[in-house]
Amino acid sequence: MNKKIKPQTLKGFRDFLPAAMRVRNYVLGVFKNVFESFGFEPLETPSLEYAETLLGKYGEEADRLVYTFEDRGGRKVAMPYDLTVPTAKVLSLYQNEIPLPFKRYQIQKVFRAEKPQKGRYREILQCDIDTFGIASPLADAEIIAVIYTVLKRLNFEKFTVRINSRRALFRLLKETGIKDKKQQLNVLRVIDKLDKKGGAAVKKELLEKGIANSTGDSILTLLSAAKPDENLARLLRFVKEFGVDEKFYKFDPTLVRGLDYYTGPIFETVVEKPKVGSITGGGRYDNLVKRLGGPDIPATGTTIGLDRICDIVEELGLLKEGLKPFTQILVTVFTNEQSKNLTIKQSLTLANRLRAEGIYTEVYLDPTAPLAKQLKYADRKGIPFVAILGPEEVKSGKAALKNMKSGEQKLLSPSQVSEKLLQTS
Amino acid sequence: MNKKIKPQTLKGFRDFLPAAMRVRNYVLGVFKNVFESFGFEPLETPSLEYAETLLGKYGEEADRLVYTFEDRGGRKVAMPYDLTVPTAKVLSLYQNEIPLPFKRYQIQKVFRAEKPQKGRYREILQCDIDTFGIASPLADAEIIAVIYTVLKRLNFEKFTVRINSRRALFRLLKETGIKDKKQQLNVLRVIDKLDKKGGAAVKKELLEKGIANSTGDSILTLLSAAKPDENLARLLRFVKEFGVDEKFYKFDPTLVRGLDYYTGPIFETVVEKPKVGSITGGGRYDNLVKRLGGPDIPATGTTIGLDRICDIVEELGLLKEGLKPFTQILVTVFTNEQSKNLTIKQSLTLANRLRAEGIYTEVYLDPTAPLAKQLKYADRKGIPFVAILGPEEVKSGKAALKNMKSGEQKLLSPSQVSEKLLQTS
Repeated sequence: MNKKIKPQTLKGFRDFLPAAMRVRNYVLGVFKNVFESFGFEPLETPSLEYAETLLGKYGEEADRLVYTFEDRGGRKVAMPYDLTVPTAKVLSLYQNEIPLPFKRYQIQKVFRAEKPQKGRYREILQCDIDTFGIASPLADAEIIAVIYTVLKRLNFEKFTVRINSRRALFRLLKETGIKDKKQQLNVLRVIDKLDKKGGAAVKKELLEKGIANSTGDSILTLLSAAKPDENLARLLRFVKEFGVDEKFYKFDPTLVRGLDYYTGPIFETVVEKPKVGSITGGGRYDNLVKRLGGPDIPATGTTIGLDRICDIVEELGLLKEGLKPFTQILVTVFTNEQSKNLTIKQSLTLANRLRAEGIYTEVYLDPTAPLAKQLKYADRKGIPFVAILGPEEVKSGKAALKNMKSGEQKLLSPSQVSEKLLQTS
Repeated sequence: MNKKIKPQTLKGFRDFLPAAMRVRNYVLGVFKNVFESFGFEPLETPSLEYAETLLGKYGEEADRLVYTFEDRGGRKVAMPYDLTVPTAKVLSLYQNEIPLPFKRYQIQKVFRAEKPQKGRYREILQCDIDTFGIASPLADAEIIAVIYTVLKRLNFEKFTVRINSRRALFRLLKETGIKDKKQQLNVLRVIDKLDKKGGAAVKKELLEKGIANSTGDSILTLLSAAKPDENLARLLRFVKEFGVDEKFYKFDPTLVRGLDYYTGPIFETVVEKPKVGSITGGGRYDNLVKRLGGPDIPATGTTIGLDRICDIVEELGLLKEGLKPFTQILVTVFTNEQSKNLTIKQSLTLANRLRAEGIYTEVYLDPTAPLAKQLKYADRKGIPFVAILGPEEVKSGKAALKNMKSGEQKLLSPSQVSEKLLQTS
């Protein structure tokens, strides 16, 4: 217990100090608010599951990234790698308690034993919304409407939801004569880079994958001329009818999305600035829930990237208005032999009054600290106002309200202090 | 991947379906709101730490309950057993970034490999508030004021914060001649039961522990006559000045609190009904942060028992007013060959309008579902209103607003629907 070890945080894991938490909590608050305004309900699953519940679902590569161990009871357990598998478990376990369609959001930590690198963490707060039990593209369109509403609410000025259909992509490949499933996936992975690398680079890479020159050409031609199929056209019309501004989404025949399990519409959101990759990714996965051990129901949904969105929000300063300081006013305390704690009582009484009016109010908790120290505390914590109650102020029944930004200071009655604070908040 | 395993949730772990999440999120919302209104800031630490950061801090018994394993990189890692040790790590790692006093709240999962039994879980959402860097009883009084405010805000009508001083207890034992530290702790553990078991049972147990009859008598006499010492008297006055109603707290010389690390005031909250044990527990622990590897600073704080508070809130029905359904209105959808999706557009347009006015609005997502099925969905999900838009309603530019409780149904214009909903929410 007395061994002095220099403490360390594990690589790929993070401590979030209050300043970072403030941004995260604000963004999460917007997420939840929008999710619930569309009727999505919260779900939570454990941070440990039987390993057999989680392993063998996504292929060997992912399995190697799952944190597994044997608990003290000899059970093989694992930490969640994503939220889809635990939800499939829930859908299977509680079929009678969960009426379909089931629209849920889930905001929980997932764990991936990846090589830590910039922007890649081993512990991620995953934010998912999914609709289970609906085959209509109305459900996919709603997911896109939720994404749009979240980003608009966070003051994003520019972003594009790219929308495509996995089914249409496969149809197009078949037209060019590529019928082998594995070869199709190979080609899709190359097409996925079209957006970033351009046609020439993609054609070169297709050649390297053994795709004939002429086939490569016709793939590119077909892609550039591609139109949404009937299902996707309906989806796009629904997106518009959900009130999504047409500037913020587009049919993009080159969108592929990495995961193999998508069966229909796919969508992701990109921003031009800053360069962070996609900030949402999702689509329809009608066969997956059953494959994962759940019931045979259609499903569609998206992940929304909290970390990247927080980065953008901070880099572009999008939340200046939304991000209020936690504490609106610090009330100082003062004591000495003569005052017999009388001034503390006055400080607490003022603080109670302000707090009862909904003003976030902090009392400095060390009555022996000089005023300069109490002011410095307010300054470091970014508290915009300080109510100074020394013996003089207390005698007059007033407080000196100091604006920490302008330095201005005024002697005010308690009701004037509260009035002033309510005006500025 | 196609192996059919009946999925299971690990014993001692829980899935939280939406109905349970609704109560938890409401209660957590009150917690956070009150914490922040007193100037406590959020902190978050990882779900995995180096095992050496967590082990050897609380004695062997606790160490056996810590989930530890070796990760794929051969590091010994552990899941947090409490939030105090990770916070001590943070205080040590980020001394320059965290100005003192530091008031933080932390709401995170902790893991204890205990024998699962009723009301005991292996995964708990721990809710802690602590103030670091303040020796004054003003800080302890504030913690009690926070507890009071939280419970009042949750409509608790009866509860008692029991307050005592660990230092006063030791002084009392010394007066009766019990000076051996280990013997003192033994006696304290027996005194702790006075509240529940009464004087006779406690005296009997003291005898069994080798305490002389006369010593046992004088312990009980001293306890019944005990008065708060000077420090505790100040604390109690501060609690009052923080606006805490005297009906809800009391000096209780028999309060001991289990943990050995407390150094000054201790406090816990109990309710008479239902019988759930204490719902908060805390106190001052001035030497602990240093012992845990952090800086040498005073500290005080409390845990607030989310699970027990949620149980009480549900059992006593305290949140009837606060717990709104997630969705306020379901808008139905209808389609057939003739309508060419026109009615869907009208449904979406109405939903967009209502949502823009802040009304939580859900659209039924399967246009092929018969109306009865859509109404049943609203009923099962507890949605209080349904706006029915069939071909007739759409033709008239109106919607039939159905009150799901009374069954009443009225043909209204979109603005009338929104007016009605805003009135009832």
